[in-house]
This record gives sequence, C-alpha cells and structure tokens, in this order.
Amino acid sequence: MRWARYLVGDKETFGLVKGDRLIDVAGDPFDGYERTSTSRPLAATKLLAPVMPRTFYAAGLNYADHVREAAEKLGRSPDLPPAADIGYRAINSITGHEDPIIVPADATELLQYEGEIVVVIGKQAKHLTAETVWDCILGYTIGNDVSERTWQRGDRTMWRGKNTDTFAPMGPWIETDLDLEAAMTTVRVNGQEKITFKTTSMIFGIAEFLIRMSQYCTLYPRDVVWMGTEGKTDNMVHGDVCEIEITGIGTLRNRVQWEGK
Amino acid sequence: MRWARYLVGDKETFGLVKGDRLIDVAGDPFDGYERTSTSRPLAATKLLAPVMPRTFYAAGLNYADHVREAAEKLGRSPDLPPAADIGYRAINSITGHEDPIIVPADATELLQYEGEIVVVIGKQAKHLTAETVWDCILGYTIGNDVSERTWQRGDRTMWRGKNTDTFAPMGPWIETDLDLEAAMTTVRVNGQEKITFKTTSMIFGIAEFLIRMSQYCTLYPRDVVWMGTEGKTDNMVHGDVCEIEITGIGTLRNRVQWEGK
Repeated sequence: MRWARYLVGDKETFGLVKGDRLIDVAGDPFDGYERTSTSRPLAATKLLAPVMPRTFYAAGLNYADHVREAAEKLGRSPDLPPAADIGYRAINSITGHEDPIIVPADATELLQYEGEIVVVIGKQAKHLTAETVWDCILGYTIGNDVSERTWQRGDRTMWRGKNTDTFAPMGPWIETDLDLEAAMTTVRVNGQEKITFKTTSMIFGIAEFLIRMSQYCTLYPRDVVWMGTEGKTDNMVHGDVCEIEITGIGTLRNRVQWEGK
Repeated sequence: MRWARYLVGDKETFGLVKGDRLIDVAGDPFDGYERTSTSRPLAATKLLAPVMPRTFYAAGLNYADHVREAAEKLGRSPDLPPAADIGYRAINSITGHEDPIIVPADATELLQYEGEIVVVIGKQAKHLTAETVWDCILGYTIGNDVSERTWQRGDRTMWRGKNTDTFAPMGPWIETDLDLEAAMTTVRVNGQEKITFKTTSMIFGIAEFLIRMSQYCTLYPRDVVWMGTEGKTDNMVHGDVCEIEITGIGTLRNRVQWEGK
C-alpha cells in the first residue's frame, strides 16, 4: 500500500497510490480511514511530504564508509559510533517531493545531498523487543538530508547546517509493503548516478535503533526516523536536480534553488 | 493573560486563568478563540503541558556560570558558546505541571534539574529583526530540563540524557504579559532554595536567539524555545519535589518517581 498526502482545495488529504491514480480517503493511516469514491490523476497532483512528524528523529552517522568520509571532510578522526544513539531534526526543514531546496544566499559551496530511508511510525510503542519492533512501523519513505558542511562543522549544533527551511525533502509517499532486505538506495544528480548502496547495510539496523530508543522514549504515530546515508557526498549547485531512489519505494526528486542566483 | 490547557472529558481544552478559576474557551490562543460561559476551579483541574510544540528548541548552554559548572561536571574546559546556535529536544519528553518525573531504573544518581524560561511562539515568522521579534511571541512558561548527566556525557547525543519520557516538565501555564526584565528564576527542592538568578542574565538573549534562528528557519505557532539555566545543578532522588518559580509566571512543580524504588 502506498500512502500519499496532498491538498484538496485547502484541505490536507491522504490518498492511496494505485497505478497512475490517487484514491482519496476520509481519515488517515494513523487514526483510521475509509476509501472514498473520488480519485485523481497522480501525475497532475502536487504531493506534500507524506507525513508531518510529531518528533523528527535522525540516526546521523550510520554507514561505515560515510563515517570515514564525513570525518575526513570535517577534519576529525573517524570514530564509528559505539551505540545506536538517535539525534533530532526540526519540523520546519521538511518539504515535499518536487519542491525546491531553497539555499540561503550566504551558504557556502559545500551544499550536499544525503539519501536516506525513513521509517514512519504507525503505532504508539514503548519497550519494543525483537519480536514486537516491526509492528509499530507503518511503512517507509525517502529523505534527502541536505547538509551545508561549513555550517555543520562550524556551528555548535546542526541547526542551520541541516535544519534550514527546505533542507529535509521527504517523499514521494509511504510504502507499507517494502522488501527491506532487497532495497537498494541510489543517488543521482542531473541524471548522473553518484552512489548505489544496499539500504540495510547500516552500522545499527532499524530494529536495533527502535528497540533502544523505545526503552526510554515512547514512539508515537507520525514520528519519523531517518536512518542515515552511505559513502561520499558531493556538492550541488543552483539548478541541480537531486534524485534519491529506493527500490520498492520510488524516487524523491528536488531541484536546488540558490537564493540570489 | 494566562493560558492553561486541560482535559474536559477526553477533549483537550484551552482556558484562561482568572484568579482561582479557569474559563474554558472555544478554539485556542494560536488560531483564534472565544470565551465560553463555562468555568471551573483551577485547584481541582489537572493541567496539561500548556502547549504541545511543533518543534521543541533548546538553547542549551546560555548562562555563564552554568557553562563553567557544566564543563567541570563533564570533565571538559569551559568554552562560552560563540554564537546563538539553537538545539533540539523531543516531544515525547514533555509532561505537565504536577506530573511525576519518571526516572528509568538504570539511571545513575546524577539526575538533575535545570530551571528555564520557555518562549512560546504565537505567530509564523521568518527574517525577524530587532523591531519585529517580540511580535511573534505569544508568551512565556517554565521548563525543567531534567538531565541524567552520565548519559549526557557518555552518549553520542543527548537522546536519553535529556529526552527520556517525562524529562521535560513544562507549565503550569503561558503568561502573555510578563515583565521579562523584572523576572527572577528560583529552583527549590523539597522547599529548600537551590538557586535564584535573574531570568534574563543570558549569554544570548531571547531576541538574539529568535532573530538568528529565523534567518534560516521559519518559526511556527506552538514552537517552544527553552532558554537554558544558570549555575550549579544538584542531584535529585526518589520522592524529591522540584519547583521552578519564575516571578510573574508562577511555579512548575514535579515529584521525582524512580522506577523500582
């Protein structure tokens, strides 16, 4: 099942993606829904980010090659994280599929993509175990954890380096029936492949993160957990189109729009 | 004006505190409201945290003595922050006035209070200036940024050190007409005063933070910004009652309940 979110008039509506159509539902995938008899063409519908989270979690460094690349970029020694310690991002940074990544005029050229799988929590959960952990997941979507490396390195926190408005494109929809083990993540800029990696080749897997988080923190419907990216990331410039594809989910596409250019 | 939030049946309701009564309103202070003819006794009403934020911002180290104390506690050299770089907390950690601070059984004895003033955003805002910054603020409430220092020091992020469920009591209400410059913050444990400090004696003030944040991040109604605490913080044990009073707002009171004790 694929859940999309979009405007009908000025009302946010959830719908099911069926082929090239969107079927409007009454309600939502979190609190219950009924299909309606209304459908609309997918291609003609501007999608919103498929969920606005309650808490926006991010794993950060969670793929071995990326840890090494990131350390080099930041002038630090590469320390693999010793435990699945989750981090946070801010809701203002979220934008949707096909929305522009708007880069402030004072950003440096170190403006980079990070292609990530995103876990969408569907049910309230605490003290998850290996047996129960998968039950709280509604499905998966795709995130581009856009990062300005100069700010990320120089500021005390990652507030503007990763949380500037539109720096967290998410979409295009939530896939509830993903074959996670088969999934591959590919990042393309202007159609040129930058990296392909096995989506689950994480240092700490989805289950490990959620189990650990939920020993201390209640997970709520609409929470999202961005799982990190792999490998080296490159600069993007004004006009670049960045695509993150995860097989079995789809492709998240966003154009870079640099203010003042 | 003082805004409280509470349950009427199972419905979350905003109300105005008038003396010892709560006047229910229809609507809320963010999207518009009308007073109703219903009121209820304040003392007999369990208050909720006065707002569930969209994004939960936290200034972190923002008072000079606390920076020195915190550095000593964490075994680091005290570096005053060079800029107003905001941080984040998670929504799950929020709880209300008179709710218990529930401490996981595996926490260490370094479980400490931090008394803070909290800015509640009332209007969407970007690119704030010294002239416009105060217009986006609905009012002020009180936060206790409960911190487990062993986890805070040892984990890669502050996820459980500061974001464990119930580690962010907030309340009792939002005061919209605070004389900020006159405000004093006092922390008491079991009635004994631990510290009193001038609420605005911050390294970076409220205006400075909001102006800087809003150059990159849109502020939204319901966002909260916790402004940090001053001085040395002490351990709390099972059964301790922690009160944070800010003159002109009120007193936030929470009891420590240690799991397994």
